[in-house]
Amino acid sequence: MAKKKPTVAIVMGSKTDWPVMEYTRNTLKEFGIESTVKVMSAHRTPHEACEFAEGAQKNGYKVIIGAAGGAAHLCGVLAAHTILPVVGVPVKGWSLDGMDSLLSTVQMPKGIPVATVAIGKAGAINAAILAVQIMAVGDAVLRRKLVSFKKNMTKDVLKADAELQKELDA
Amino acid sequence: MAKKKPTVAIVMGSKTDWPVMEYTRNTLKEFGIESTVKVMSAHRTPHEACEFAEGAQKNGYKVIIGAAGGAAHLCGVLAAHTILPVVGVPVKGWSLDGMDSLLSTVQMPKGIPVATVAIGKAGAINAAILAVQIMAVGDAVLRRKLVSFKKNMTKDVLKADAELQKELDA
Amino acid sequence: MAKKKPTVAIVMGSKTDWPVMEYTRNTLKEFGIESTVKVMSAHRTPHEACEFAEGAQKNGYKVIIGAAGGAAHLCGVLAAHTILPVVGVPVKGWSLDGMDSLLSTVQMPKGIPVATVAIGKAGAINAAILAVQIMAVGDAVLRRKLVSFKKNMTKDVLKADAELQKELDA
Amino acid sequence: MAKKKPTVAIVMGSKTDWPVMEYTRNTLKEFGIESTVKVMSAHRTPHEACEFAEGAQKNGYKVIIGAAGGAAHLCGVLAAHTILPVVGVPVKGWSLDGMDSLLSTVQMPKGIPVATVAIGKAGAINAAILAVQIMAVGDAVLRRKLVSFKKNMTKDVLKADAELQKELDA
Amino acid sequence: MAKKKPTVAIVMGSKTDWPVMEYTRNTLKEFGIESTVKVMSAHRTPHEACEFAEGAQKNGYKVIIGAAGGAAHLCGVLAAHTILPVVGVPVKGWSLDGMDSLLSTVQMPKGIPVATVAIGKAGAINAAILAVQIMAVGDAVLRRKLVSFKKNMTKDVLKADAELQKELDA
Amino acid sequence: MAKKKPTVAIVMGSKTDWPVMEYTRNTLKEFGIESTVKVMSAHRTPHEACEFAEGAQKNGYKVIIGAAGGAAHLCGVLAAHTILPVVGVPVKGWSLDGMDSLLSTVQMPKGIPVATVAIGKAGAINAAILAVQIMAVGDAVLRRKLVSFKKNMTKDVLKADAELQKELDA
Amino acid sequence: MAKKKPTVAIVMGSKTDWPVMEYTRNTLKEFGIESTVKVMSAHRTPHEACEFAEGAQKNGYKVIIGAAGGAAHLCGVLAAHTILPVVGVPVKGWSLDGMDSLLSTVQMPKGIPVATVAIGKAGAINAAILAVQIMAVGDAVLRRKLVSFKKNMTKDVLKADAELQKELDA
Amino acid sequence: MAKKKPTVAIVMGSKTDWPVMEYTRNTLKEFGIESTVKVMSAHRTPHEACEFAEGAQKNGYKVIIGAAGGAAHLCGVLAAHTILPVVGVPVKGWSLDGMDSLLSTVQMPKGIPVATVAIGKAGAINAAILAVQIMAVGDAVLRRKLVSFKKNMTKDVLKADAELQKELDA
Repeated sequence: MAKKKPTVAIVMGSKTDWPVMEYTRNTLKEFGIESTVKVMSAHRTPHEACEFAEGAQKNGYKVIIGAAGGAAHLCGVLAAHTILPVVGVPVKGWSLDGMDSLLSTVQMPKGIPVATVAIGKAGAINAAILAVQIMAVGDAVLRRKLVSFKKNMTKDVLKADAELQKELDA
Repeated sequence: MAKKKPTVAIVMGSKTDWPVMEYTRNTLKEFGIESTVKVMSAHRTPHEACEFAEGAQKNGYKVIIGAAGGAAHLCGVLAAHTILPVVGVPVKGWSLDGMDSLLSTVQMPKGIPVATVAIGKAGAINAAILAVQIMAVGDAVLRRKLVSFKKNMTKDVLKADAELQKELDA
Repeated sequence: MAKKKPTVAIVMGSKTDWPVMEYTRNTLKEFGIESTVKVMSAHRTPHEACEFAEGAQKNGYKVIIGAAGGAAHLCGVLAAHTILPVVGVPVKGWSLDGMDSLLSTVQMPKGIPVATVAIGKAGAINAAILAVQIMAVGDAVLRRKLVSFKKNMTKDVLKADAELQKELDA
Repeated sequence: MAKKKPTVAIVMGSKTDWPVMEYTRNTLKEFGIESTVKVMSAHRTPHEACEFAEGAQKNGYKVIIGAAGGAAHLCGVLAAHTILPVVGVPVKGWSLDGMDSLLSTVQMPKGIPVATVAIGKAGAINAAILAVQIMAVGDAVLRRKLVSFKKNMTKDVLKADAELQKELDA
Repeated sequence: MAKKKPTVAIVMGSKTDWPVMEYTRNTLKEFGIESTVKVMSAHRTPHEACEFAEGAQKNGYKVIIGAAGGAAHLCGVLAAHTILPVVGVPVKGWSLDGMDSLLSTVQMPKGIPVATVAIGKAGAINAAILAVQIMAVGDAVLRRKLVSFKKNMTKDVLKADAELQKELDA
Repeated sequence: MAKKKPTVAIVMGSKTDWPVMEYTRNTLKEFGIESTVKVMSAHRTPHEACEFAEGAQKNGYKVIIGAAGGAAHLCGVLAAHTILPVVGVPVKGWSLDGMDSLLSTVQMPKGIPVATVAIGKAGAINAAILAVQIMAVGDAVLRRKLVSFKKNMTKDVLKADAELQKELDA
Repeated sequence: MAKKKPTVAIVMGSKTDWPVMEYTRNTLKEFGIESTVKVMSAHRTPHEACEFAEGAQKNGYKVIIGAAGGAAHLCGVLAAHTILPVVGVPVKGWSLDGMDSLLSTVQMPKGIPVATVAIGKAGAINAAILAVQIMAVGDAVLRRKLVSFKKNMTKDVLKADAELQKELDA
Repeated sequence: MAKKKPTVAIVMGSKTDWPVMEYTRNTLKEFGIESTVKVMSAHRTPHEACEFAEGAQKNGYKVIIGAAGGAAHLCGVLAAHTILPVVGVPVKGWSLDGMDSLLSTVQMPKGIPVATVAIGKAGAINAAILAVQIMAVGDAVLRRKLVSFKKNMTKDVLKADAELQKELDA
């Protein structure tokens, strides 16, 4: 059986972002969504990054998820070259605990938004869920999956609470 | 002729956010998109806010845009009660220049993303554009409008540059 | 002999907060105060959290202590649904060293206070003491316990000083 | 008719804090609570401040609200000398937009909590409400007033929303 | 007499940066250096910005000075497309007092430096001086001008001191 | 032979500060200065701390060095009770990497200075040197020791440089 | 009658710091202490600054007070060239609200302390008081003046409190 | 064969900066550029540092690269004594994660620029590349090397991407 065409592109500024962004890919998979993962840098492969963003819509992508650290320009550069929604994951860089990555990603000037999520792993997971929410606007199957995902989260918290009660009673 | 049904809800924590969030409504209008604007507080009208978020998808909304300042919980609370994409605008509060609003909006735990844009007016405009980009995933007309919007932005910058050259030559 | 009814509720956004919040429970115990501990999330179990807060006073609680990290909305959400005093412990999240948790907890808009204490373990212990101080307003036994607790703290510092003097003399 | 004895003490590090802390006094008045207002500095009148805190409980106070800016030691110093709950309002100082006041107030070491609220005016109002909530633990009349206060806040937001709808329709 | 060909390009993300960046142009003029001033945005005119940077060296430029605010990607994007030294001026944006602009400009990943100077007007002047210093490496006339510029700065401070002494004696 | 009377008091908020403040004592010893070391807390032993500061001058101390972390009130409280110069060492607390300790120590209101040095170990050493400099104002022997200390520092750097040159040549 | 020889040197990086540092001079005058005021820059008149610091002790100065903003190197540079105690006043620069000035002044490496006081005017006043405290170590007259200064501060606060009570009673 | 004369000076405030600054030296070597490495402190060997900077141009250096942490004055002090371009590497100090080093290096007042690069290792590498870019302004061979360096960076990213694709396909 043929593999489904990916509808989400995950673009990382460096391969070192992969241990974080693997959560994005895996979370998308939980929703049955295929993704393309690319290492492309706004600074070191600018042509490839711009070209990828420019062709993304035509190539069937519906959402681009970018991830970068430090002076994190990648998401802004991708957003400059596409009309697709670009989700930005600020990855902790080599200092300042992700504050530089966050501000470089979120403080976009008017006209070119980047849908920024939390720093690091939490953001990597949420980027995937946000992408699903975006695609679910026009997709009833995804909407049902999101409803069920939300219910499971609730169950997980209730289960964690139940476990704690047991531990406390012990 | 009947007015189009709004597809975007703009929810503000306080009516004092309106001078900022009016830019969201007006930007949406430029794209021909109707929006509902609500003053609803995560803390002072929690029932209304939760109920609104819970019914939002059924009521035809495709995107919710939230705006709040200080310990800005509104967007997270809305996101907890819907599977629609929630866009968050951190509005400058009474101190700390918007840093509190930004961190309270963007640092969401895994499972419940808020698509955060820049602090203040730039973010208010970008929230609208992001909402359009999200709806454009399934709407070719909106995609064409976004392409043309992007072209106009380019023209505006080129025009500003041309004016500057004239001033420098004078 | 029947166990006393808990008068303090400790609500954590995630079970991973327990190693910190265990200090709250234990400190309360030192004052002979029973507590209920719950894992409940403002975002993943919003209904449970709201319901718990709404019923808290009727269920005999006098103080609610909340603990959360990142965009820490839990305490604000609990406070929105109760007239009980809500004490907030900002727990360090996955980045920014607790600054996000602190600002999300303390910068509450007018009308809905959260009594915020220090980040992490120091705050977890102090949340318990603050809860005791609150209940002691109407309870002479607790007031005597607080006086004695204060005296013991003084003794501990004096003892630490005495030990140091011995080490220095050695 | 004799004036009621004050049950809340508002202590400011400087008379320049009064325009902010007047909100505390006025909010307390809305709940029918009398307060004493004192200018007392942890650094310039340390004896008076310590003595006041030490005698506060005996003198009938149930809650102390402190307010200071910069290296805001006042609340910590008051808390060191009483077992009453101390609520801290970080007031913006001459630089750093209140961040110094906030950290100096909230980051108390274990053993001596200060119930910190938001920076500035929002915190001044919330300090009053928190004091009411604390006293309401043992006072059914205050509890009813808090319920009604909460309802009025809700009404105010609904009214603001209604006004906005009218403006938008106009 | 023909005008000298500009050797420095000043590129601003927005025409609103001109009141700051005019200091760059004027400082360069004091050294007899012509500059081209362009409004070009990394996000709104990405093609123009990239093309300009790619052609800059061939077109006779020796240094590029970029200026942008908020998520200031301009300098990084210019640097990605040229081997010329790129000097970055972080301009205060709409919030956070220039911290976002600074971090977005200076925290470049390895491989693509941006020579960052101070936020705002001080940086705008220093960007010009740095450009002169760079060109002076191979230009004895400029070196002499820098020596004389340094002497004049010294004189100005000594003169300010002399004036102050007079005022104090008066 | 009788031990010299200590002229410097080192006061720490907690015995856990000793590994840092031991550097202060040892650096003082290098200058032949005896010090008293005390564990005394602004919050847990306020009476002892105030009394100590009040009697310090009479007891022969010339400088007080305080050290505390978090909401570091100790130095300010000591300074409130003495006219001796108080040197403050901000010690890293349990979060925020010492920023809270620094701001709580340095941002003293007018009237009550604390001579603040760097966060942590560097500050602990510098507090000792500053105390020596202060006492050297009226002590020619100490002045000579400071001159020689400065020369040794220079020698150490020159030696480190010489070693590096050797390593590079190898 | 001959004017007393100045014992304190106030060195400012720029004449624009004078409106702040005038408070230093005036506070010293209240204690009967003459001061020299100099505009000298670590960067623009480095030779003069170094020479001044090197000769300061021989020229009868007992304390140097430095003041600078931005990357405030002045105090560190002065301290490198003298064994006198150097007091540093971080003056707000053109951005970041004095945080840059504070960190550049206080975070000195081991070996070369700068006795840092608060940002801006409060620090300017406190620098003077600290200088008096330092000189008072060996001067009983100054010690009596400090005791009396402290008493007056106490009186001022008590008076402010008395005024407030009157206003509240009115 | 005689060794080439060094054209770049790498000056570190402390030998502990060498593990970071070794990257600068090695990157320069990749471009065939010899460098001198010196340990010289703005505070502990001020004369040596000033003298070195003053003679640097005469001694054949074209660029000075400075590196320091904490209150990082070294680069500013070097820049005060030379007309050569000074590149500044903020090295993480003992606290605040490099923010103090960054602000002390970059926020230079008008007249004396420091070309600041990123904090730590990324900055150390980029300082070398920036120095090459500066010297390449008048050196066609270096320009070709920079073009080839840029191409190799691109290849490295493409290769990393290719490897990732392989891993994902596996």
